Amino acid sequence: MIESSIFHNSHDLSYRKPFGAVDIGKYVSISIDVDIDAEVYLNLIKFDLSKYRKLMIKEDDKSNRFNIEINTDNLCGVNNYYFEIIYNNEIIYYGNNEDELGGIGKQYVGNPKTYQLTVYKERKVPSWYKEGIIYQIFVDRFCNGNDDGKINNPKRNSFIYGNWDDDPMYIKDEHGNVVRWDFYGGNLRGIIKKLSYIKSLGASIIYMNPIFEAISCHKYDTGDYEKIDEMFGTEEDFKALCYEAKKLDMKIILDGVFSHTGSDSKYFNKYGNYDTLGAYQSKESRYYNWYRFNEYPDKYECWWGFNNQPNIDELNEDYINYIVKDNKSIISKWMNLGTYGWRLDVADELPDEFIKIIKDKMLNVNNDSVLIGEVWEDASNKVSYSKRREYFFGDELDSVTNYPLRDVIIKCLTGSISTKYFAKRIMSLYENYPIENFYSNINLLGNHDTERIFTMLEEDKELLKLAITIQMTIPGVPLIYYGDEVGLTGGKDPYNRKTYPWESPNTEILDIYKRLIGIRNNEEVLKKGDFKFIDNTEGLIIYKRMYMREMITIIINPYNKKIDYKLIGIEKLAYDLIDNNKCEHNNNKYINIELNKREFKIIKSII
Amino acid sequence: MIESSIFHNSHDLSYRKPFGAVDIGKYVSISIDVDIDAEVYLNLIKFDLSKYRKLMIKEDDKSNRFNIEINTDNLCGVNNYYFEIIYNNEIIYYGNNEDELGGIGKQYVGNPKTYQLTVYKERKVPSWYKEGIIYQIFVDRFCNGNDDGKINNPKRNSFIYGNWDDDPMYIKDEHGNVVRWDFYGGNLRGIIKKLSYIKSLGASIIYMNPIFEAISCHKYDTGDYEKIDEMFGTEEDFKALCYEAKKLDMKIILDGVFSHTGSDSKYFNKYGNYDTLGAYQSKESRYYNWYRFNEYPDKYECWWGFNNQPNIDELNEDYINYIVKDNKSIISKWMNLGTYGWRLDVADELPDEFIKIIKDKMLNVNNDSVLIGEVWEDASNKVSYSKRREYFFGDELDSVTNYPLRDVIIKCLTGSISTKYFAKRIMSLYENYPIENFYSNINLLGNHDTERIFTMLEEDKELLKLAITIQMTIPGVPLIYYGDEVGLTGGKDPYNRKTYPWESPNTEILDIYKRLIGIRNNEEVLKKGDFKFIDNTEGLIIYKRMYMREMITIIINPYNKKIDYKLIGIEKLAYDLIDNNKCEHNNNKYINIELNKREFKIIKSII
Repeated sequence: MIESSIFHNSHDLSYRKPFGAVDIGKYVSISIDVDIDAEVYLNLIKFDLSKYRKLMIKEDDKSNRFNIEINTDNLCGVNNYYFEIIYNNEIIYYGNNEDELGGIGKQYVGNPKTYQLTVYKERKVPSWYKEGIIYQIFVDRFCNGNDDGKINNPKRNSFIYGNWDDDPMYIKDEHGNVVRWDFYGGNLRGIIKKLSYIKSLGASIIYMNPIFEAISCHKYDTGDYEKIDEMFGTEEDFKALCYEAKKLDMKIILDGVFSHTGSDSKYFNKYGNYDTLGAYQSKESRYYNWYRFNEYPDKYECWWGFNNQPNIDELNEDYINYIVKDNKSIISKWMNLGTYGWRLDVADELPDEFIKIIKDKMLNVNNDSVLIGEVWEDASNKVSYSKRREYFFGDELDSVTNYPLRDVIIKCLTGSISTKYFAKRIMSLYENYPIENFYSNINLLGNHDTERIFTMLEEDKELLKLAITIQMTIPGVPLIYYGDEVGLTGGKDPYNRKTYPWESPNTEILDIYKRLIGIRNNEEVLKKGDFKFIDNTEGLIIYKRMYMREMITIIINPYNKKIDYKLIGIEKLAYDLIDNNKCEHNNNKYINIELNKREFKIIKSII
Repeated sequence: MIESSIFHNSHDLSYRKPFGAVDIGKYVSISIDVDIDAEVYLNLIKFDLSKYRKLMIKEDDKSNRFNIEINTDNLCGVNNYYFEIIYNNEIIYYGNNEDELGGIGKQYVGNPKTYQLTVYKERKVPSWYKEGIIYQIFVDRFCNGNDDGKINNPKRNSFIYGNWDDDPMYIKDEHGNVVRWDFYGGNLRGIIKKLSYIKSLGASIIYMNPIFEAISCHKYDTGDYEKIDEMFGTEEDFKALCYEAKKLDMKIILDGVFSHTGSDSKYFNKYGNYDTLGAYQSKESRYYNWYRFNEYPDKYECWWGFNNQPNIDELNEDYINYIVKDNKSIISKWMNLGTYGWRLDVADELPDEFIKIIKDKMLNVNNDSVLIGEVWEDASNKVSYSKRREYFFGDELDSVTNYPLRDVIIKCLTGSISTKYFAKRIMSLYENYPIENFYSNINLLGNHDTERIFTMLEEDKELLKLAITIQMTIPGVPLIYYGDEVGLTGGKDPYNRKTYPWESPNTEILDIYKRLIGIRNNEEVLKKGDFKFIDNTEGLIIYKRMYMREMITIIINPYNKKIDYKLIGIEKLAYDLIDNNKCEHNNNKYINIELNKREFKIIKSII
């Protein structure tokens, strides 16, 4: 190490400009302070390792600041960089911090952590999506729309819960395999019935877990992509849902499960339940090459080893045509019937090429559509199967599931990470994601694959309020998992898939949701505004959103104690969006904010 | 051994008279042939070992026949006997055959097997029962009588089968405990709807598996003896069932499960689901002394170790009053509402005293009623918990479940025992049971605790016909387990509890049942007639029934080959009851019967 001041901060515009990911072709200015007389280089590595460049950085007028302008013309994708400082024939590195979260870095003797510079082809995400609020529905568990309460067409050898409010469970054999599927009987008619309720919540987008024919209750084991599951309803019901949703200015998004099918499907047809010739039944099957058999027919690749879900070779030409390219492809069919978007299940399992083809097709069918990917980590630099994924470089996804946000909200509110680390984690995504993607992030607090948020927060209503406040005020598209808004609890699957408690909603929590969603929907600044964390010694989570001449400051006290905070920099009118009270200035210099334990403020002001 | 002719045959009236069990106070003449000059004794042992008598037998006029008359005044119960022959200071024993089935015995050097002589107080069993035919219904699986197909009041956390014809299964955890109960939704209204169908079959008695409130589908874990299970219906439904049945001249028999209750009951109340103070909840509970706790409250005696079925101390005074003695006791209540009989579940677990009290009460309430016991073996000499049971001595049961018949029918028809052994086993019951009890035997081919008969006979319709023929023509009350008559199949529980296939009955089998039940119902001789096996060298099962001046001869060829048989002793009109054809005599000496493989004949003649 050299005992000298070497410094770079990727979040500071005087060291890197513009902030974050950049549109291809734009120049990026990168600077580093080095207070010794050294040679300074920028090592720039392209994500696919196809290019490595060592660029000499020049010193600005002997100011100790070394600066270089990078042309991003050929850098589309993820790039990484670190600095190499040669002094007295010794090499010192300066790279990202240990957590690789961007911002201020550190010196390394060797193996420096790298900063990320994302370069992308800009594509605008439709504003109905970016500015919307998603309501996610696990169809079997939401609402049975039949007036007589009957269940549509129960599957052969399936079980129906005796009561709508029974506890969910899997019916498994001694090996842990599900032997009978369990249903409550929710259906599309039920969703249609509850559209005005969903609208009244403030949601504008409905994302449904899979609805195509499949023997399971979750339907991730597709039996027939062309058909609405008979328990959920008919194609007519689906059209009616889209039609009624449209009347309320709401959009429908479907779950596209393309990495695997069910083994009990018209394609694989392991049990002969379909009248097609399935891949399992004969090598002569049209579908034989869709799958990968290790030993025909009983050993085949499957999703996570679940042999009811054989994996697809998504690049099989016939499969691509069937799912995507044909005029009457699955993607086309359901979009023509009213779907505005697809959520790609296990996007990490799908080849980039396949996702690109889907995106392309979707734009052709409806360029106001949205493609979402299920990705559990930072999607900009995700590696799956030893390959860097290309989700965000302009040809693939508009949006991903923001599990990292859920993770840090829960951890920070329950005290296992600091508010500072919370901010760092968010800043990292903000820096790495193309701006459209960051603002299109699905900000979920829970869904069908996670524990319910209320359960994770130990059923503490105050903490829940804080979580919802963050969800509704941070950039991205809030997603409400059905029932969260009425206090539904539950651990992991199947307990996170309880039925919506129509008979016993927690209206106190419902009011909280409505209030905070209302604020989000009323304030343009929360949908479009810039975003900035505010450092503070009190350990609060504070960030600002700014748009046009408006600013909203969000202040979160996750602690179990009262904290006073002086909010400065607000000189004009300011008021609290929760109680609509005007905030009192102290000599126009600051506003004294008193936060009770686990309290939050949303302060709106004019800049 | 003495090389001499010593001989006794308990089935031969010249060696023992009268045949079989005798009414108390009657004399029994017992003889033995001994062709040497010996002292001959009869050793008579009373069932409770309270009396042992060694009686000298005198020789009749030096005819080698030794005879003794026994006064049975003090012998009520089971008595056993064997002979002791003293010759040249040596002792030879003569006792029952090795199988202890009665008839011809054998010599023993020591430890002779004993003959049985049952002595009883005669009690007539009502003729509606003895001459009736029982239809057994497992309520949940028989018929849902709701017009809209709804299931009445599903239990909390239970499962309903998706379809009426789904395969039954238990939903168990990894320890093998049932964790959710499974229901199809059959109910009392369904039985009412099908009463005319049951009547049309020829059945006159309906025995239902338990119908009182309980969380399981089988309801052997009673929750409340006072209440019809809500899924099955209401007390009004029960009254309507009795009323409608009466209109069709049919009787209702209930299942009385008194050896244990459910743990989830108003009495034990382990889960607090009842608003009573349960035995599990407090030692102050009224019900505390009904149960036997080893370690309060979690260790208690239970039925077969199933901890959802805690055992009852049936001799607890409060329990006896509640179940039997009170004016509004359980026994009274349901009899006053229309029940004509009770089937005591696991009679072997109930103290004789308790059964006697029930029988007494029943006679008080309705002396035309019937008490049946679930007993799996020869009930006359059954030992349970080291105690000889007193079922048949006049104060307890009218009837038991004739599992031994089922056993030998299946074994004989499938070739694992000979027709001779079949006859011996039946003769043993005939000899040991009081005549009223023998004619009241429930002749079942299968029920909720056994495999279905059609399955046991490997779904061979010809064998099934033979089984039904025996069932309908041998003394006793035939029991048809719902669905057997339409070819329902299934192994042990739960597969023997499939739903009645209303949509797809096997009408060929139904026709067989109706035909044979019709013959049984039309012929007084089959209901009341004497009974006698006919020895034959062809290995057929042949037996005769005789009443007034009519005789019916049943001939069964269980073999896979054609057999001719000359039926002698029929000199007048004879005809085949199956095809109503007159039988041709050969010079009035015999009828030539040709039996194809697995064929049977039922020949009626006038004596």
